[in-house]
Amino acid sequence: MHTNLIIFGAGGDLTQRKLIPALYNTFRKGSLPKDISILGVSREALDDASFRANLKSAAIQNLPNEFTEESWSAFEQLLSYQKSDFTKAEDYGLLEQRLTGAGQPAGNRIYYLATATRFFCEIVSQLGDLKMLTESPDTGYRRIIIEKPFGSDLSSAKELTKRLHTDAKESQIYRIDHFLGKETVQNILVFRFANAIFEPLWNRNYIDHIQITVAETLGVGHRAGYYDQAGALRDMFQNHLLQLLTLVAMEPPAALSADLLRDEKVKVLTSLHPITADTNATETVRAQYEGYRSEEGVDPNSSTETFAAIRLFIDNWRWQGVPFYLRSGKMLKEKVSEIVVQFRSVPLQLLGAPSDPQKLPPNRLSICIQPDEGCQLEFVAKVPEKDKEMRAVNMDFNYRDTFGATSIPEAYEQLLLNVLQGDATLFARNDEVDLAWKFIDSIRTAWDSGSGAPIKTYAQGTWGPQEALDLIEKDYREWIRACTAKSE
Amino acid sequence: MHTNLIIFGAGGDLTQRKLIPALYNTFRKGSLPKDISILGVSREALDDASFRANLKSAAIQNLPNEFTEESWSAFEQLLSYQKSDFTKAEDYGLLEQRLTGAGQPAGNRIYYLATATRFFCEIVSQLGDLKMLTESPDTGYRRIIIEKPFGSDLSSAKELTKRLHTDAKESQIYRIDHFLGKETVQNILVFRFANAIFEPLWNRNYIDHIQITVAETLGVGHRAGYYDQAGALRDMFQNHLLQLLTLVAMEPPAALSADLLRDEKVKVLTSLHPITADTNATETVRAQYEGYRSEEGVDPNSSTETFAAIRLFIDNWRWQGVPFYLRSGKMLKEKVSEIVVQFRSVPLQLLGAPSDPQKLPPNRLSICIQPDEGCQLEFVAKVPEKDKEMRAVNMDFNYRDTFGATSIPEAYEQLLLNVLQGDATLFARNDEVDLAWKFIDSIRTAWDSGSGAPIKTYAQGTWGPQEALDLIEKDYREWIRACTAKSE
Repeated sequence: MHTNLIIFGAGGDLTQRKLIPALYNTFRKGSLPKDISILGVSREALDDASFRANLKSAAIQNLPNEFTEESWSAFEQLLSYQKSDFTKAEDYGLLEQRLTGAGQPAGNRIYYLATATRFFCEIVSQLGDLKMLTESPDTGYRRIIIEKPFGSDLSSAKELTKRLHTDAKESQIYRIDHFLGKETVQNILVFRFANAIFEPLWNRNYIDHIQITVAETLGVGHRAGYYDQAGALRDMFQNHLLQLLTLVAMEPPAALSADLLRDEKVKVLTSLHPITADTNATETVRAQYEGYRSEEGVDPNSSTETFAAIRLFIDNWRWQGVPFYLRSGKMLKEKVSEIVVQFRSVPLQLLGAPSDPQKLPPNRLSICIQPDEGCQLEFVAKVPEKDKEMRAVNMDFNYRDTFGATSIPEAYEQLLLNVLQGDATLFARNDEVDLAWKFIDSIRTAWDSGSGAPIKTYAQGTWGPQEALDLIEKDYREWIRACTAKSE
Repeated sequence: MHTNLIIFGAGGDLTQRKLIPALYNTFRKGSLPKDISILGVSREALDDASFRANLKSAAIQNLPNEFTEESWSAFEQLLSYQKSDFTKAEDYGLLEQRLTGAGQPAGNRIYYLATATRFFCEIVSQLGDLKMLTESPDTGYRRIIIEKPFGSDLSSAKELTKRLHTDAKESQIYRIDHFLGKETVQNILVFRFANAIFEPLWNRNYIDHIQITVAETLGVGHRAGYYDQAGALRDMFQNHLLQLLTLVAMEPPAALSADLLRDEKVKVLTSLHPITADTNATETVRAQYEGYRSEEGVDPNSSTETFAAIRLFIDNWRWQGVPFYLRSGKMLKEKVSEIVVQFRSVPLQLLGAPSDPQKLPPNRLSICIQPDEGCQLEFVAKVPEKDKEMRAVNMDFNYRDTFGATSIPEAYEQLLLNVLQGDATLFARNDEVDLAWKFIDSIRTAWDSGSGAPIKTYAQGTWGPQEALDLIEKDYREWIRACTAKSE
């Protein structure tokens, strides 16, 4: 059956920088279904030719190595354009006509809402009014892709879901978090559940603590206006960091279906020990980089955090008492996303003279998400020639070295293919989103009321404020920068 | 206190190729104690100068990269020579005079018996007669180093021990197996007991089976006469392979003292499930390489094995039911020594379509002893772009890459230093030797009586006879060649 991919917001940045390049790449590799059309929808008046020309220059710019005239000529046959005002009912009528008009193959539809969040409900509601979301065996499926943020707190997220559910079933909605399309993120599941040796160790008996770092070197840039309303907690923790947490912490699902997997993620989020107003000051840290309040678009009195660190616990059999340290921020020292699993120390220091105060370094397993995808296991080996001297060494696995640089697809490629296949495994379900907001809101509320951790500042190019170091060092642990970049 | 190292058999191959180069290297690195003299003892008439000259040319030949005139000139000051017939009592008197004569510092003595095995008892007995083995606080220690083979079966080994014990205590005897001086062999202990994550997996609950391969590409060469009397079982299994087995299989010792460690090795050997005449044919394989009987020095009707493979079990709580597959031989395809620990499969194949018959490859941990020392962990990762396709990949650790090529000492360097330090950890104790012979003798006896596995032949440059493959394949397993050579 034919498939129509309808992109709302086709003139926007996301479409030009990510969606079309991802679709083009997928096409180039022969992974895109043959019977697909891509219809851009936006407010501007454009004909198909100029729409294609715009996207072509964007593709050349974004895919300097992959772009070829030949494959683009074939690809752009799939592209067409329809001018539309998202708020006007008649424009949806025109859209429906275009999609079902003479010469247009009927079939499946994917509506990609690459628009500002405020249009989500409007568009879905209009589509619903015209029965453009009604699925049937004859006319195929109707799927909706929406981009984060999914609300700005629990109540707005619930409201969004409620309004979307008026016209669409939850199973039709694909909440995209491009972070989950990264190979290494998906590989966490493979790593944990396609290998027999990690799962027996993956619990409070053997794991001392887990760290998750998602660090950026850039500031807020052109997103300042949005960012100043959001902050690191909403922008990064509610989605990326908590998603990583659920993948690392969840129980093995009964099978690898989207809902069984998400059921397990929901269980983790349900088991999060809440950070209350009482514990906020000891469990969280928030800070702004120096100069943030002078950025264009930022309120000069802003108390929005550009960095946050939290210590959390999961109240279940597997993780009781194991701290998870999460940190994320802008203008930090390195651009890196990684998960470090630190194991407990050996029960007996058998090697090394008894009088030797040398503490054996603990084993650590690091999952590197960026810049270089891979993993490494830190273990202790004997130093040659030194009779009983030992030190930590690494076993390494690097995705790029093993599979070749070009084979690692962009996150959007993977995720768009998944929607085409109807595989929602890597997409957030509404209950996940709600529980993540619930956890985050509790921290936010204390911050906003002034009862929690006070806002600090940190120098650009550091790892955040001293308080972030204190958060982990008071537990006699330290932040680890494990993954070494091999690329470039 | 001064130390005299007295090498019996100082004109021989071992002294020239291994001992002196090892001592010279240790000297060069500054690890050799300052107050040491090295006295060569042999039948030839040589003065100190020609002895030094002989060793110098041997050192140049054996250490082309390390040798320098300057350091040799300093080193050779330590060397002197004494002509002696090992069977003549008066020559021992002369030796004693030389060691205690005017201008000679009294002190510790290490007697290195780098002679044919048949002289061991004679030399020790003569030394005993002249009280040259008597230790005292004033005159220092008296240690004896002997080289394998330690007997040729249980009764000859017991006889040897008995005769040695007439004149020396067990604690004075250092049975050297250069295999145990290799860094990676020592590192097995560090790997297992200085890391918290392997020990919980190191048992029948998680390990499917263990393989030990010690393969050579050369034939018997100039050792044909000896070898044809010994065979692979005596030459390799009784010492190297069973020693590796004990290190891999033993319980953590209460502390890392030589005797506590060797107690644990003895426990493993005690728990070996005997291979009897009844089980010999199914648990063992023996074979000769094609052309072996035509080698010079080999009996044309010889039934001596140049290859053996056995499957054995250890009857204890940790290893019950876990097969250990051991193989060793000459004229095989590659020169390699490695241990492969294969873990049990995942309990549920969660990933991969249910209809997919793809069996997930099991995790394997390989300890590489030669040619390249290191280890690697084989685990399953997602293949990029392939939605649910997985394959085995490796995390690697390479000793040479991490510590540099030159830092890995020769086995003899390590072992000689250990004797100087009085550390017998890496040396075989008499009960170990006996238990190893007991296990080996039981196999030998069945072979010799014709009731066990028949002798087979195998083509040179292969991995042995078909029967060796069958031995493991009948258990639905296969021999693994895990370690990849990175050097050269």
